[in-house]
Amino acid sequence: MDGDSLASKSLALHKEHRGKLFTGLSAPIETLEDLQIFYTPGVAEPCKVIAEELKALREKRGMGRGEGDNDSLYTYTIKSHTVAVVTDGSSVLGLGNISSAAGLPVMEGKCALFKRFGNVDAFPICIDSQEVDDIVRAVQLIAPVFGGINLEDIAAPKCFEVERRLIELLDIPVFHDDQHGTAIVTLAGLLNALKVTGRSLSDARILVNGAGAAGTKVSELLLAAGAKDLTIADSKGVIFEGREEMNSTKVDLARQTNPRGVRGGLREAIAESDVFIGVSRAGLVDAAMVSSMRKDPIVFAMANPVPEIMADEAYRAGAAVVATGRSDFPNQLNNVLVFPGVFRGALDHRVRLITTEMKLQAARNLAAMVKEPRSDKIIPSVFEEGVAAAVAEAIR
Amino acid sequence: MDGDSLASKSLALHKEHRGKLFTGLSAPIETLEDLQIFYTPGVAEPCKVIAEELKALREKRGMGRGEGDNDSLYTYTIKSHTVAVVTDGSSVLGLGNISSAAGLPVMEGKCALFKRFGNVDAFPICIDSQEVDDIVRAVQLIAPVFGGINLEDIAAPKCFEVERRLIELLDIPVFHDDQHGTAIVTLAGLLNALKVTGRSLSDARILVNGAGAAGTKVSELLLAAGAKDLTIADSKGVIFEGREEMNSTKVDLARQTNPRGVRGGLREAIAESDVFIGVSRAGLVDAAMVSSMRKDPIVFAMANPVPEIMADEAYRAGAAVVATGRSDFPNQLNNVLVFPGVFRGALDHRVRLITTEMKLQAARNLAAMVKEPRSDKIIPSVFEEGVAAAVAEAIR
Repeated sequence: MDGDSLASKSLALHKEHRGKLFTGLSAPIETLEDLQIFYTPGVAEPCKVIAEELKALREKRGMGRGEGDNDSLYTYTIKSHTVAVVTDGSSVLGLGNISSAAGLPVMEGKCALFKRFGNVDAFPICIDSQEVDDIVRAVQLIAPVFGGINLEDIAAPKCFEVERRLIELLDIPVFHDDQHGTAIVTLAGLLNALKVTGRSLSDARILVNGAGAAGTKVSELLLAAGAKDLTIADSKGVIFEGREEMNSTKVDLARQTNPRGVRGGLREAIAESDVFIGVSRAGLVDAAMVSSMRKDPIVFAMANPVPEIMADEAYRAGAAVVATGRSDFPNQLNNVLVFPGVFRGALDHRVRLITTEMKLQAARNLAAMVKEPRSDKIIPSVFEEGVAAAVAEAIR
Repeated sequence: MDGDSLASKSLALHKEHRGKLFTGLSAPIETLEDLQIFYTPGVAEPCKVIAEELKALREKRGMGRGEGDNDSLYTYTIKSHTVAVVTDGSSVLGLGNISSAAGLPVMEGKCALFKRFGNVDAFPICIDSQEVDDIVRAVQLIAPVFGGINLEDIAAPKCFEVERRLIELLDIPVFHDDQHGTAIVTLAGLLNALKVTGRSLSDARILVNGAGAAGTKVSELLLAAGAKDLTIADSKGVIFEGREEMNSTKVDLARQTNPRGVRGGLREAIAESDVFIGVSRAGLVDAAMVSSMRKDPIVFAMANPVPEIMADEAYRAGAAVVATGRSDFPNQLNNVLVFPGVFRGALDHRVRLITTEMKLQAARNLAAMVKEPRSDKIIPSVFEEGVAAAVAEAIR
């Protein structure tokens, strides 16, 4: 479908339904008895049970509010299956800082995907401030209802601090999908692409272009998975120890990357590499850059909606495996393969912290969904059965 | 149904569905095109339209975020039909201060009633603090998604300040149902009860027992409706100018009430009155008190779940019209007759402030739903068709 047609269809659907979500009742209210159970006086019963357990937990532990340990709260309320999709609107899709209100259609869409693919109920929270303290405080103040927090479209490096502080403060899982969802799906795709081209992760020369929320965590997860020769470039060129204009995250990464001491910009860095992973901007890579890579290169051009290089052009320039974020080419590296399963697993098993080991296992499980990887099939498609379950299996 | 049976049925329903709400999709996601419309790239279109309108509004007005004026936000997102049900858990039903987490079943129930009776989508927000500043700040920070804020089960007098500050800060309607919902349904019932007993509001001697969130606003609305001889009692006895132990709200009310200079406690105050309105505690009124009222007295015993006096006992003591909050007697004065319609009207007409005139009209419309009021029929039942629409008609 062409862009104009899609845009007008999108506006029409959003207008017809006034957005994409509604609140449903888990059972009908048709009789007076239904009403007495849904509301007063029957509703007092689960309240009392939850309050008693909270009281007991506090007496036992002597601190904290104890919601995360309150089995009754998980048994009798929506907490066990409900996630907040939280944004400050500072980095929405490819649109940039458009405010949290203007980002609401994206958050609603994310909630819809949570439901459709993970059977997770999700609700959008658009925060009317872009200050770290406000974002953290707002989420902390509304946390009791939720079984997990999905951070969304919050700009780097602010997103790192928001996530770190919320993980410390809350007793429910907090997951910034732009970071970890992207990292997991990228690793999953890469594991199969390496298999297709007969490489190992520890030997491959990998260039990650982009050092924002996604690039940072993609790099960290690849390192944790065993990558040895990984180089990162940002808009100022290759990252190395001692380079100027680096935030503390990049300083950390510089220590663990670029073992061959590469210098220069993207053109210098991509030459003689085996793998290019772009989480940067449209059109940054040309055919000559792909041709300058080692034999049978792997090109993940994940900028959205327009990739660093179009898939057909990358193939013509000699790429052996190409993946993008787009659905109109094979090998779509789409976060929707990841986040519904991550929260499905976290909710099912009351996981509080999504560890690196869980993320690695989620990537391995996702990769294993493709029984026989090929150049044009390194990752399952979004609508394949069992994807969320495979990811959820890793989060326990 | 007896209490034990109701309690066990309530726990069973809450457990079976893990609470009472779910998030539904307004349209199915079955094809790649559906996915492209619900999420990227199609979702960018409404985001851009909203962002452009926000930008234009800010340039024009030079201040504020402008969500309340953003037609696109109301057209393309859930804002136009979604309300937050907000509590701090400080005064939940008859259970008292049980924490906001333990109040979640009540908030979910409220959301369910919003949907069932007003076709308003509502989501529970349980605030993890009972400080006024935190409650106000949290609601302000998450307001962009919502078309209205229903405050619930927040203790008096804190609730007055929370509501006042939020009305000042936000450009969407804010309504504390325990105050105004109760006031509107009480006035509606009273208008018909006065008709049944051949009285006028301006002549009737009215005693309101209870000066919390509900009692205060019931009194104010009755005064606004034309009551002239209204006296208020709290747990310390009758309120009058110069009495000790009064907060500023009571000081204000003392100036406008008690024209006959009544002194003493409930027993002294109820004697020779025409109307008793209890928004206080179970069992405070005995048969002798009802017998001490003027001929054909009106008794609204609205304490929940156990009224100030049971309906049959009040009738035996000579009451002409009795109403309670209970569904097992006639004349149930239930807020669910009011709040779904109030928000339905406010959302339909983009009303920002629910004025006293709107509340008075809502009460008149609700009373008019009963074509021929009788002693045992002064208010429509919850399941009657058209109740929410009649109330909504007043909120414009």
